[in-house]
Amino acid sequence: MVGICTSDSQAARLAFFVLHTLQHRGQEAAGIATTTNGIAHVHKGLGLVASVFKEENLGTLPGNLAIGHTRYSTTGGSGLRNAQPQLIETIDGPLGVAHNGNLVNAPKLRRGLLEGGVGLQTSSDTEVMVHLLTGAAGNWIERIRALMSQAEGAYALTVLTRDAVFGVRDPWGLRPLVIGAIGDGYVLASETCAFSTIGAEFVREVDPGEIVRLSENSLETYAGADPKPRALCTFEQIYFSRPDSICDGQLVHSTRQRLGRELAREAPVEADLVVSVPDSGTPHAVGFAQEAEIPYTEGLIKNRYVGRTFIEPTPQLRAARVAMKFNPLADNVAEKRVVLVDDSIVRGTTSGPLVKMLRDAGAVEVHVRVACPAIISPCFMGVDMANEDELIAARFSVEEICEHIAADSLAFLSIEAMMRALDTDRGYCNACFTGRYPFESMRFVQLSLNPKTEFTSVWRD
Amino acid sequence: MVGICTSDSQAARLAFFVLHTLQHRGQEAAGIATTTNGIAHVHKGLGLVASVFKEENLGTLPGNLAIGHTRYSTTGGSGLRNAQPQLIETIDGPLGVAHNGNLVNAPKLRRGLLEGGVGLQTSSDTEVMVHLLTGAAGNWIERIRALMSQAEGAYALTVLTRDAVFGVRDPWGLRPLVIGAIGDGYVLASETCAFSTIGAEFVREVDPGEIVRLSENSLETYAGADPKPRALCTFEQIYFSRPDSICDGQLVHSTRQRLGRELAREAPVEADLVVSVPDSGTPHAVGFAQEAEIPYTEGLIKNRYVGRTFIEPTPQLRAARVAMKFNPLADNVAEKRVVLVDDSIVRGTTSGPLVKMLRDAGAVEVHVRVACPAIISPCFMGVDMANEDELIAARFSVEEICEHIAADSLAFLSIEAMMRALDTDRGYCNACFTGRYPFESMRFVQLSLNPKTEFTSVWRD
Amino acid sequence: MVGICTSDSQAARLAFFVLHTLQHRGQEAAGIATTTNGIAHVHKGLGLVASVFKEENLGTLPGNLAIGHTRYSTTGGSGLRNAQPQLIETIDGPLGVAHNGNLVNAPKLRRGLLEGGVGLQTSSDTEVMVHLLTGAAGNWIERIRALMSQAEGAYALTVLTRDAVFGVRDPWGLRPLVIGAIGDGYVLASETCAFSTIGAEFVREVDPGEIVRLSENSLETYAGADPKPRALCTFEQIYFSRPDSICDGQLVHSTRQRLGRELAREAPVEADLVVSVPDSGTPHAVGFAQEAEIPYTEGLIKNRYVGRTFIEPTPQLRAARVAMKFNPLADNVAEKRVVLVDDSIVRGTTSGPLVKMLRDAGAVEVHVRVACPAIISPCFMGVDMANEDELIAARFSVEEICEHIAADSLAFLSIEAMMRALDTDRGYCNACFTGRYPFESMRFVQLSLNPKTEFTSVWRD
Amino acid sequence: MVGICTSDSQAARLAFFVLHTLQHRGQEAAGIATTTNGIAHVHKGLGLVASVFKEENLGTLPGNLAIGHTRYSTTGGSGLRNAQPQLIETIDGPLGVAHNGNLVNAPKLRRGLLEGGVGLQTSSDTEVMVHLLTGAAGNWIERIRALMSQAEGAYALTVLTRDAVFGVRDPWGLRPLVIGAIGDGYVLASETCAFSTIGAEFVREVDPGEIVRLSENSLETYAGADPKPRALCTFEQIYFSRPDSICDGQLVHSTRQRLGRELAREAPVEADLVVSVPDSGTPHAVGFAQEAEIPYTEGLIKNRYVGRTFIEPTPQLRAARVAMKFNPLADNVAEKRVVLVDDSIVRGTTSGPLVKMLRDAGAVEVHVRVACPAIISPCFMGVDMANEDELIAARFSVEEICEHIAADSLAFLSIEAMMRALDTDRGYCNACFTGRYPFESMRFVQLSLNPKTEFTSVWRD
Repeated sequence: MVGICTSDSQAARLAFFVLHTLQHRGQEAAGIATTTNGIAHVHKGLGLVASVFKEENLGTLPGNLAIGHTRYSTTGGSGLRNAQPQLIETIDGPLGVAHNGNLVNAPKLRRGLLEGGVGLQTSSDTEVMVHLLTGAAGNWIERIRALMSQAEGAYALTVLTRDAVFGVRDPWGLRPLVIGAIGDGYVLASETCAFSTIGAEFVREVDPGEIVRLSENSLETYAGADPKPRALCTFEQIYFSRPDSICDGQLVHSTRQRLGRELAREAPVEADLVVSVPDSGTPHAVGFAQEAEIPYTEGLIKNRYVGRTFIEPTPQLRAARVAMKFNPLADNVAEKRVVLVDDSIVRGTTSGPLVKMLRDAGAVEVHVRVACPAIISPCFMGVDMANEDELIAARFSVEEICEHIAADSLAFLSIEAMMRALDTDRGYCNACFTGRYPFESMRFVQLSLNPKTEFTSVWRD
Repeated sequence: MVGICTSDSQAARLAFFVLHTLQHRGQEAAGIATTTNGIAHVHKGLGLVASVFKEENLGTLPGNLAIGHTRYSTTGGSGLRNAQPQLIETIDGPLGVAHNGNLVNAPKLRRGLLEGGVGLQTSSDTEVMVHLLTGAAGNWIERIRALMSQAEGAYALTVLTRDAVFGVRDPWGLRPLVIGAIGDGYVLASETCAFSTIGAEFVREVDPGEIVRLSENSLETYAGADPKPRALCTFEQIYFSRPDSICDGQLVHSTRQRLGRELAREAPVEADLVVSVPDSGTPHAVGFAQEAEIPYTEGLIKNRYVGRTFIEPTPQLRAARVAMKFNPLADNVAEKRVVLVDDSIVRGTTSGPLVKMLRDAGAVEVHVRVACPAIISPCFMGVDMANEDELIAARFSVEEICEHIAADSLAFLSIEAMMRALDTDRGYCNACFTGRYPFESMRFVQLSLNPKTEFTSVWRD
Repeated sequence: MVGICTSDSQAARLAFFVLHTLQHRGQEAAGIATTTNGIAHVHKGLGLVASVFKEENLGTLPGNLAIGHTRYSTTGGSGLRNAQPQLIETIDGPLGVAHNGNLVNAPKLRRGLLEGGVGLQTSSDTEVMVHLLTGAAGNWIERIRALMSQAEGAYALTVLTRDAVFGVRDPWGLRPLVIGAIGDGYVLASETCAFSTIGAEFVREVDPGEIVRLSENSLETYAGADPKPRALCTFEQIYFSRPDSICDGQLVHSTRQRLGRELAREAPVEADLVVSVPDSGTPHAVGFAQEAEIPYTEGLIKNRYVGRTFIEPTPQLRAARVAMKFNPLADNVAEKRVVLVDDSIVRGTTSGPLVKMLRDAGAVEVHVRVACPAIISPCFMGVDMANEDELIAARFSVEEICEHIAADSLAFLSIEAMMRALDTDRGYCNACFTGRYPFESMRFVQLSLNPKTEFTSVWRD
Repeated sequence: MVGICTSDSQAARLAFFVLHTLQHRGQEAAGIATTTNGIAHVHKGLGLVASVFKEENLGTLPGNLAIGHTRYSTTGGSGLRNAQPQLIETIDGPLGVAHNGNLVNAPKLRRGLLEGGVGLQTSSDTEVMVHLLTGAAGNWIERIRALMSQAEGAYALTVLTRDAVFGVRDPWGLRPLVIGAIGDGYVLASETCAFSTIGAEFVREVDPGEIVRLSENSLETYAGADPKPRALCTFEQIYFSRPDSICDGQLVHSTRQRLGRELAREAPVEADLVVSVPDSGTPHAVGFAQEAEIPYTEGLIKNRYVGRTFIEPTPQLRAARVAMKFNPLADNVAEKRVVLVDDSIVRGTTSGPLVKMLRDAGAVEVHVRVACPAIISPCFMGVDMANEDELIAARFSVEEICEHIAADSLAFLSIEAMMRALDTDRGYCNACFTGRYPFESMRFVQLSLNPKTEFTSVWRD
């Protein structure tokens, strides 16, 4: 997600390069909207940023104000209709909205709108927010406050109007949003890694509950909503953010190495070699190796071109799904006791085949270490993890999982160790690990948690 | 490239999974042809394997014999017309041809065909080979021999007929081609890494000058052409092959680590940290670090979604091309003396920005080490490196390049050390490093080589 | 436009055949929406009905209730976003709207909606009507009445809800809407010619200001708005409707023949031959020939494949635009005094080249007769005629036009004669001929009418 | 089909306008090839001429020499691969070929090529001819003669080389090809109607067996093959050509009127009204009416947008196929004795529903008159009529057909009367009416002709 106000008319071009750098946050659709002289323009399309935008498209997006979005979730529909930014005409001129996150009270808000005589075209939260902004009274700051007073859940927003770009972050700070400075202007982005691409300087993050307003040569701040206990998504640190971004004042890559170090302390193992599940598990594995003083090396090669394929494997190829993604490096692992470090286990469908792959390549022992706790509850705040039935740790104990994936041992990082690695006293949302969601309305949510998941480490012998 | 003969009718499906694994060898187009009961079928398209083939396409490709191809080069034209396999009707039934490599005497062969009254539809070598096969006398083995007696250059072929699949490799063995066994059948592929995906066993490579014939339950071998001095492309070892393939009896990943070790021995440097240019330079960097006993870590993050973009950066974004691809990890390199290991330098346009990027991130010294010799001559055998004018080492000395990229020091691996690392007495084509091509007809090719490129290492102080 | 309630689940299929028959009313886009069990489905696309709908699309449109639309005007935007039916979710379930016509007070209605906090996504009247329906109170009949109390202009609507299809016609009856019976169900269409295609029986037209409600086995009628002086668009009779439709109780083809007869009486000419501007002018020409007792024959051949071309003619081809559409039949017109009958003259760009074409083909005299009055005012009610500057009769006298097109004589039908030919005492909108629009709000519209256009006939000698 | 040599570089643009005018001769694909400075360019696509060519495509087609084609038949395959012109590189530079017609000895020619070591990519005759031209010896005239000495069947060709455009017509003159003059250049087209569009003058037709060579400022003629008895396709006169073309020195529209006149003389009927099956039957009906002195009027309206639809009618809509195409004008035919004139009856699937439609609209008698003889044999020379099993007159007597379509009477024109109407002593191919084909090789073709089809007229009472 991006919002930008520049001193020249190249806002869309800069927005393009930001979105391209943030491509890992969503590959389903991309879009940019601009305003100039009170007129709005938008270009959206399905697919990657680089394929949606051609030079001629930027020609149709003049102006020094822009917002942009890459669509991640496949919830709702995946059609172009759900691509963002959403753009409409209001009594105060054009309004564009780009949204990351998920509202947990969307059904209630939808019902309220419908009862008020508003018609809805999509099932998306974004349309709900657009209507709440349009239907509210006052200037844009007042309207955004009205929205924030009603919305419960995760939302980082960039909002485009006739003469300004706004950045908004939910009072829990669930989804990230950071501010950079570029020339005489400012830029909002989901992660700081985008700033290097366009030569912007990282200023600070947007505070939970804050509204910032970007206009020519100025960055103004407004209180948007009363503060709530901070609850940044821990998964941003573990997996979602790019390792070269700064999150909570720390380089994500370094934080991931610390997660690996804590894991090595908490669940040590006598072994010859540490390998990672590439690419996301590599920083954690490097940290584990450093702490454990066991050599790190590459043990699995990942096909760079893994994407969605539409071809069913034959029974003969039943292992093909994982084999299409990973191959072992036999020379490196043969006759070695191997620690396989992964950043997380969600469904648990990959770990088993990887353990087998390493054994087949000659590894004499395979110990699996996971650099976060067991995931036992679904995320309702915008990370497309899986529903409860699909979460392997919601259904099985660590011991059972270890047996299921046929590892010599399996350990998850404890919540305490994870928090130590994050090295901060600011709050995080750990709902996926604990089942405790940060919202009033979800206090009494009854999740049929499997009590066995209390164990975070087990040995199979 | 793939050729397959199975005992069931799923040849096309297996071919798909092989091509998907070999996607790194060509991303421009993909195609599969099959024969069954003397009738041929083909499906080709522009783009990645996974997007060209849907389940319904496989339905139109019945049969137990298949060949397939991913198109790499952008030479000739990039249209669908040039996609492979090429398929025609001959007096002996359908003929399909998939080709990797480049003929160096193609102009002469084309002229011969045209003079013989043959019309040509494309500028591709493959069409030339199809016509040579069609116009020759005798059975398919005899025709392939006739082709081999005329063709000079690099070619690995899979050939499809009514009742067999042939594998052919040029007498120099320039391009790789390996044989695997699957069930009662056999599979030909460019690299062994494809065998793990489909559960095939690596049997051996096709010998230079050999023709193999795959049919139901049998693998026959025929002498195709008199042997020439073996000349496998060294760049397959350095860069092109996947690290999990076996090449000349060795795991490519291990060979690359040895290249890094040799580099550390030949061009040592006192430093705090070894980082790689990901992903291709990582095995070399790991080897360098092991030999030099300097810690290896990740220093640059690569955007996984780098592909062709069509948007011009503004002058303000003049560094964006490299910044779109790489970002530094400041925590890791700050205040460190860094060795940056790359697998090779071709045009030299990336190295300068990367050195600057590391310095900006706080590195106090940046020493560049390249795990192969300076590239001074273009490849006419199928690797799309660059023409001579674009090869930085063909125009500048190592000293000048070092200054150009503003490194503290720069060293290329020597040819001798490179050959030591390959650890084999079999011959390799080093034409891109030496300007000496393995063909009679190119003996007197005069390349205006820059004499300065003899130096392989230089210090800038 | 179509609305349908059938006793089986083939509503969309029937809607398809109706739209295909009504293709002449709009070629820009097509769409069908259905509801079944309270769930709505829609499929829309740019282009002709036959290319937008494939068999698999109908599979996604279950239900016994359907509405459909073909888009005509290029006003607003021509993108898919403006294609109809428009479909939204309301507190009372899905709402679909298809609209023919144009509201003359749309700017005022838009302003009212925006001021009420509603955001608008398009510049179309249809979206305005959807919001007025959604925001109104009461049941659907009450909501439609609320809409009708505010909307001024031309509108024939089909409205789809959870359990019914509504047909609505503006109180002036500007745009046509007719009712047919099919099996146990009913069908609404813009013209009766669609009924023959699906084997439906023509029942009656929807009255101006009437609301009809189609549900299983019943057709209910409701008063929607107070009656206004009837003002059906005369151009439907002259040009727009298909000749095999029944309009105001008369076959359109017969009415057009009567227009030709009146023209022959009012502007007779001594000639050898009557020819038409095919195809739309043929019935008028046949009527003219019958009344004048001059033989009718084909004198011009029309290219059946005339559509939008994107190729600019060279100066050498400056006459190509008309020559691409029409060719003369020299044998038929050579050495003849010819009467060329056209249904209407809008911009006057075709008549001149056609007169020249006939002369070049050997005609010794060419007399142009136009089967309606001179068009001097633009249509704001949904016929995309031209704006005032483009209307040739708004800028030039009949004498000047005659000279401009180099005809031997030129005559337009008088308004009185036209009304005689319509053979009805019901009111028609003749605003394009008179500049007098049927709405209160347009009473004081000042159009700079050219006083010369009072003359309806002139001879050039 | 078109070939053009102009004095400027707009050959492709002129070719476009010619093809657009000849669109009725083929709607499946379109293409244009040009040469300039020895280099050839081509653009082809599926669909109508106007949709295949955009302004930017013409920019890629420079040069003063061009050939072009619209593809008609759906035989062979309908893919882009079969689109024409076909373009290849030969020893004498580029060669482009556009072909109308069908070779009857294509299988033999294909076998000869294959046996000579040529591979074939398609099943099209055009590729065969391209190879025969390429493989022959001598200059282009000699090569074309070599082709003509081998090819048996219908072929009108335009051939493009480095410096000339050739026009070729088979020795029987089966398919038409005419020459026009434009500025200092010349143009070849299938029909003269294309000349008016671009302002060219009709010069003469290409003679059967003649080769013409167009180059700058010159039109040369060469004897291509020994003359055969002239055998122009009669169906060009009856149906295929545009009525505004000149064929055998006569305006086609006039010839069709004469066919109607002969029909009226040969099969008179007492009736009140003559109506046509529009649009192709109208000239014949007008001629019938004139001769019979019975008024002609429009009795059926044709949907201008009839094209291929992909939607299956429900059983309820079983009549929809014809109803989608035609509607009756009840006012015109009610209580009348109607003569329905059609240009021809091929499968006979339309006539029955049309007779019923007219009766349902009130006609008291419906007499069907067909302006050509009964079609009893398939065409192997390029008109996609139907195979023998589908030809209604090959299976049933006129009496049986009359009963089948439920007409009051039915009559076909006799061959003698048809030839009188053509008003020429030049030969025509009447194989579809007689089963006697004009080729040696087909002398002994045994077609199981139905002897009943000798009768050309019958009354049902």
